Amino acid sequence: MSRKKWITFLTDYGLENKFVGICHGVMARIAPDARVIDVTHLVPRGDLGHGAEIFRQAVPYLPEDAVHLTVVDPGVGTPRKPVVLVVGDQLFVGPDNGMMLRAADELGGVDAAYALDDPGFRLGTISNTFHGRDIFAPAAAHLAAGVAPEEFGPAVPVDELIRIPDPVRRNEGDTFYAEVVVEDRFGNLQTSLDSGFLESGGATVGTKLELISNGETYPIPFVHTFGSVAEGEALAHIDSADRLAVAVNLGSAANKFSLHEGDTLTLRRS
Amino acid sequence: MSRKKWITFLTDYGLENKFVGICHGVMARIAPDARVIDVTHLVPRGDLGHGAEIFRQAVPYLPEDAVHLTVVDPGVGTPRKPVVLVVGDQLFVGPDNGMMLRAADELGGVDAAYALDDPGFRLGTISNTFHGRDIFAPAAAHLAAGVAPEEFGPAVPVDELIRIPDPVRRNEGDTFYAEVVVEDRFGNLQTSLDSGFLESGGATVGTKLELISNGETYPIPFVHTFGSVAEGEALAHIDSADRLAVAVNLGSAANKFSLHEGDTLTLRRS
Amino acid sequence: MSRKKWITFLTDYGLENKFVGICHGVMARIAPDARVIDVTHLVPRGDLGHGAEIFRQAVPYLPEDAVHLTVVDPGVGTPRKPVVLVVGDQLFVGPDNGMMLRAADELGGVDAAYALDDPGFRLGTISNTFHGRDIFAPAAAHLAAGVAPEEFGPAVPVDELIRIPDPVRRNEGDTFYAEVVVEDRFGNLQTSLDSGFLESGGATVGTKLELISNGETYPIPFVHTFGSVAEGEALAHIDSADRLAVAVNLGSAANKFSLHEGDTLTLRRS
Repeated sequence: MSRKKWITFLTDYGLENKFVGICHGVMARIAPDARVIDVTHLVPRGDLGHGAEIFRQAVPYLPEDAVHLTVVDPGVGTPRKPVVLVVGDQLFVGPDNGMMLRAADELGGVDAAYALDDPGFRLGTISNTFHGRDIFAPAAAHLAAGVAPEEFGPAVPVDELIRIPDPVRRNEGDTFYAEVVVEDRFGNLQTSLDSGFLESGGATVGTKLELISNGETYPIPFVHTFGSVAEGEALAHIDSADRLAVAVNLGSAANKFSLHEGDTLTLRRS
Repeated sequence: MSRKKWITFLTDYGLENKFVGICHGVMARIAPDARVIDVTHLVPRGDLGHGAEIFRQAVPYLPEDAVHLTVVDPGVGTPRKPVVLVVGDQLFVGPDNGMMLRAADELGGVDAAYALDDPGFRLGTISNTFHGRDIFAPAAAHLAAGVAPEEFGPAVPVDELIRIPDPVRRNEGDTFYAEVVVEDRFGNLQTSLDSGFLESGGATVGTKLELISNGETYPIPFVHTFGSVAEGEALAHIDSADRLAVAVNLGSAANKFSLHEGDTLTLRRS
Repeated sequence: MSRKKWITFLTDYGLENKFVGICHGVMARIAPDARVIDVTHLVPRGDLGHGAEIFRQAVPYLPEDAVHLTVVDPGVGTPRKPVVLVVGDQLFVGPDNGMMLRAADELGGVDAAYALDDPGFRLGTISNTFHGRDIFAPAAAHLAAGVAPEEFGPAVPVDELIRIPDPVRRNEGDTFYAEVVVEDRFGNLQTSLDSGFLESGGATVGTKLELISNGETYPIPFVHTFGSVAEGEALAHIDSADRLAVAVNLGSAANKFSLHEGDTLTLRRS
């Protein structure tokens, strides 16, 4: 039984309604001393891949003395399992739908998992559509208040946890195959390639790259920052999450290349 | 004199400006130990009915050791009265415009009300347009810091508090008359009918319903969740606030039925 | 070495991604006892003038026992200097790009400035594009935890700090020249004129004003509030930041007058 000082909170609930505030209220009633950090609540609705990337990229910077509550839950109302994952000294709470596992891997993997079954750690009535309020926020708060994970329900074998496929990432000769993992509102395209992977395939800042998309080939300089190319020009750079991102200086790479989240793209050293 | 640990904060101020942050600052200066929960700040501007529903549906989940600060204030700058309401052990602060009374009723009703008149509990200068900063946030913070409600000004008779009409809700034979109380950004339509009211009128999950809107009649299955109907199909279900909501699976009921917040609709058992 | 209870946080990062949450995480790791107030994160991207006005108008209401962290940083990745400013008992952290100086002037001016050079108070790896995470949030948190400003790096002469020009504001006879300093989403136009400046030029509520914009002249009553004119009519009023704002009752002054942030306008007593 060890308390956690922090609860971090990541959802696709949006901000224009009462959902986030209600979950804060539920947590405050159960664990009034825990402090809550909102990571973001604007994950695109039901987009597990986007949520998984955001969470993986954020978790190394979040407090370690924490329960991480993440609810992107397109399966709410179906039999998918609510779980708590033990990841070193940190605890993850959410639906068993794969969204939390990339972040868990980032921290060394899941040590144990338990079903959130005990009705004593849920609200009295369980709705069909708002398990954040009824199951997940109460669980996160009880964990923060010191309830041990194994008190919530039976162990779930770690190798039975649902996984979502890792994003495409492959290198053959002078060619890299990648996936757009996050598209932001400016049309910047974050890919699945990190700097180490690129380097081992012979690509670093200064390497001449071509982007192949929808049958077209575009030269795309691999540079340090946006300012290295003229306005309206495309570029590739290593972003703050150590991922290769394709962008257009003061423009939209998504529009220029008709590429969007989940799409695959090909990059070739030329 | 009893302190409150929490201040909950609900407005239509939006997030893209300084208003919410300034109110947080004002409260931090007066009541540095109080903790603040933002319920939402994206109530549609000046929409008292929307704000009243959101607050009523949220308040049972918010901390009880709290001052609830709610500012949707289309009458700012007119003589409408700033008030504090005593609701059991909880305190509500906002303009006397009816927005807080549905939530107060939810908790058992208003026990006493006082005008926020004492200039000692306001900021030094009162603007015409930002009473959240100048009057309401200071009052909430002084209350949280332990000032008693009756110290703010004269009692306001509870039956003289402004009320906004309750949403339409009527049952005649096999017909229900309802109002759209909240329309969300996805076009889901939350109605004024709750499960108890429907049940006493003979409608539960599985009942065949017809929606009559603008002279047209649409069959609308009363189901457990969205997934119970095909993509693009309409449905009615009990939402997480125990209200009948009309929706379209992966679509917009607002568009399909040309129904929006404040509109009335008719549902018939068939 | 004196701790600060509060960190206030103002950026143009937006809310739909992980940036704000990550900075909160970084600060929580370094200064777990500090409390953070989000002023806003929706400053238009890279808009230093807008950010400077928002910060200047907010800072008198924010806690004084605070580090104010403000990151609007169009120069990220260029050699612009990260700095801490000592402003009385308050500390400002951000890029040396002028955005913080109007707020500092509001509080009496900058007493001292230091470069944020010491790598011991930064994260281990510095990205090209996210100095909020790597440099500024860690600095704010170390300051809140009690590290003295002069421990971060060499003093920067105060008169060498970058300034952005003050907004246009001039009075000649019966004419005022002003600048639109903030345009909000409703099309309200906040100008650089405050009530004292107007008064000393002979204009107060009730004065007949004409707005001259793009060669056209419009009568514009100087009134107390929106409600003083009919729906769709233009007005000028003193807003909650004590600035003359040009607005249209239930309409958009930006559209009506084709005036936007940064534009200059002429007002004449008639």
